[in-house]
Amino acid sequence: MRPDDARHMLRALELGRRGMGNTWPNPAVGCVIVKEGTVLGEGWTKPGGRPHAETEALAEAGVQARGATAYVTLEPCAHHGLTPPCTDALIAAGIVRVVAPFSDMDPRVSGRGFDRLRTAGIEVETGLCVDEAEDDHAGFFCRVANGCPLLTLKLATSLDGRIATASGDSQWITGPETRAYVHRLRAIHDAVMVGAGTVRADDPLLTVRGFDVPRQPVRIVVSRRLDLPRDGNLARTLDQAPVWLCHGEDAPEETLQAWQALGAKLICVPLHGRQVDIAALMQALGAEGLTRVFCEGGGELAASLLAADLVERLDLHMGGVVIGAEGRPALGALGLDRLSEAPRFALKSVRQIGDDVVQSWARQRRQSHA
Amino acid sequence: MRPDDARHMLRALELGRRGMGNTWPNPAVGCVIVKEGTVLGEGWTKPGGRPHAETEALAEAGVQARGATAYVTLEPCAHHGLTPPCTDALIAAGIVRVVAPFSDMDPRVSGRGFDRLRTAGIEVETGLCVDEAEDDHAGFFCRVANGCPLLTLKLATSLDGRIATASGDSQWITGPETRAYVHRLRAIHDAVMVGAGTVRADDPLLTVRGFDVPRQPVRIVVSRRLDLPRDGNLARTLDQAPVWLCHGEDAPEETLQAWQALGAKLICVPLHGRQVDIAALMQALGAEGLTRVFCEGGGELAASLLAADLVERLDLHMGGVVIGAEGRPALGALGLDRLSEAPRFALKSVRQIGDDVVQSWARQRRQSHA
Repeated sequence: MRPDDARHMLRALELGRRGMGNTWPNPAVGCVIVKEGTVLGEGWTKPGGRPHAETEALAEAGVQARGATAYVTLEPCAHHGLTPPCTDALIAAGIVRVVAPFSDMDPRVSGRGFDRLRTAGIEVETGLCVDEAEDDHAGFFCRVANGCPLLTLKLATSLDGRIATASGDSQWITGPETRAYVHRLRAIHDAVMVGAGTVRADDPLLTVRGFDVPRQPVRIVVSRRLDLPRDGNLARTLDQAPVWLCHGEDAPEETLQAWQALGAKLICVPLHGRQVDIAALMQALGAEGLTRVFCEGGGELAASLLAADLVERLDLHMGGVVIGAEGRPALGALGLDRLSEAPRFALKSVRQIGDDVVQSWARQRRQSHA
Repeated sequence: MRPDDARHMLRALELGRRGMGNTWPNPAVGCVIVKEGTVLGEGWTKPGGRPHAETEALAEAGVQARGATAYVTLEPCAHHGLTPPCTDALIAAGIVRVVAPFSDMDPRVSGRGFDRLRTAGIEVETGLCVDEAEDDHAGFFCRVANGCPLLTLKLATSLDGRIATASGDSQWITGPETRAYVHRLRAIHDAVMVGAGTVRADDPLLTVRGFDVPRQPVRIVVSRRLDLPRDGNLARTLDQAPVWLCHGEDAPEETLQAWQALGAKLICVPLHGRQVDIAALMQALGAEGLTRVFCEGGGELAASLLAADLVERLDLHMGGVVIGAEGRPALGALGLDRLSEAPRFALKSVRQIGDDVVQSWARQRRQSHA
């Protein structure tokens, strides 16, 4: 490693994050081209996943790239997909050194990109900013490894874990700054997902508002029988952002046709008991190319995801209010008897936003000795 | 103000906090005597409330105190109580300047201490570290102003506001570091309070353990009919720390006598509906001299205190686990319909302790326009 390597890699990670939520099914990669301490080109994966970060950065650097180092947040691809391989572009441009955190998990790339570069005489260094890069690519890797997207569950609750009074009053538990932050979170996910009860109760838009995004996240509703209003905000805004309806095999045919006519995408999911099979649902979303899904409730869907061990990150947004036991709980029943069976999370970050406390937790895998 | 005033006052506040939880019914005051930049004496109110901080600091400074400045965290007393007035001691010692945050709220002192000092030719300055001192003396001031102690409610919950599974398993939601921190919190309160259900379910000791304290907090149990085990941890340790039982007028006479024989103090509280009147209970605790009470649940007592607007501070200790809707809620019913009626709190601090998140919230008074 050289003295400035970390700084340039952190910049590449920063650039890569600009694509988060927009590049699926591809990873959101960043790239910086540097020669003799001067940054010649910067790039990141563009919405839809193409062009790749390396192509962008090389285009900016132009002929000056000859003899330069490329910092890339993921192993450059070596296969012909819809674009020619990035390894070939790096070789052709005369790059002499490539720095990356680690190999890609994608079997089409894994190790082959680095091999191809080394064969062409390019120096390859790995091991820099591994944790940060793993975090950024977690959704892409989750889909490659497990076939399903990384799921972040957001709960916005009172100090005692409630989301509304018994009568359903929920405006507002968290403040405007935290609600604006939720739009930032939606923007870095490929899709926003809610249960049918939330759609019926709140008639949400589920779009990113308050700032520009290159691509609105997909809006996913999980509803076994598609018992949803067809004159609500989601149906009304199908031209602004896609709506995917995940339904059971027994959803009424006329309802399916009506939604299809409106422009919604229909995803049929097998049943598991009285609900759609939540693991099969996540696999279906992975098959559609999604890498990062942001679930905003409600309590029953959240509980299903937790019980099936599908929640990788839990974002807890708490407002300074108490509601009491008659209030509506943030989570439905998990069917736990012992505390040792309960899903556990490790704290990633906690901070104050406006008057609220925002915590981010990551799934803790069961220890083998547990 | 002079350049070093803030530094010496912060030290005096630090010293004063050493008495917190031990000085009731007196305030926990700190005092530093300084001459020409040299600290000559330090003192703080001793357990039981006497000697006062000023007496202690003057004793350490001795004859050198002549011509010195005294930093005191509260206006020195001017009345003859069980000790002679501190104003007279400061005058006799030849102190030429007294720095304090503000006047005492106690009507026996308020302004008179400063008047007496000024009449004796001593320069008096106020307005330094007002927020810190208000925070430290909040319990003492609460009792003077409202007749009841400052109440801090601690809730130790899962991320979804639960304190146990449906079967009652609650070991452990928070980790060892946070549970050790609870002993620190107990130590800076005059009393620890729980409901009868908590005593029956957990058989707690409620003492401070893990480090030495000059005085154990009073252990208060709220139980209308005193339906409590007389062979449990509380009864067994009556020689280690006082137990005060707050009961209704209809508690069985033989039960009262049995507890009295064991050495518990009995406090009869009028009924309000089917429970003891929680506001009357807090007044009774104030009349006994308590200034800072730390309530550790259970959910019904916590809900009564919140509903009666008696919770001044809410400490929320959260472990990284989710339990789900069948789990036992941290709070009982509050009887709220609208969110605008819900008790609101402002964040004082949030931090990570071990693997947990510990938040401290302060009661937000209703705005007049609300």
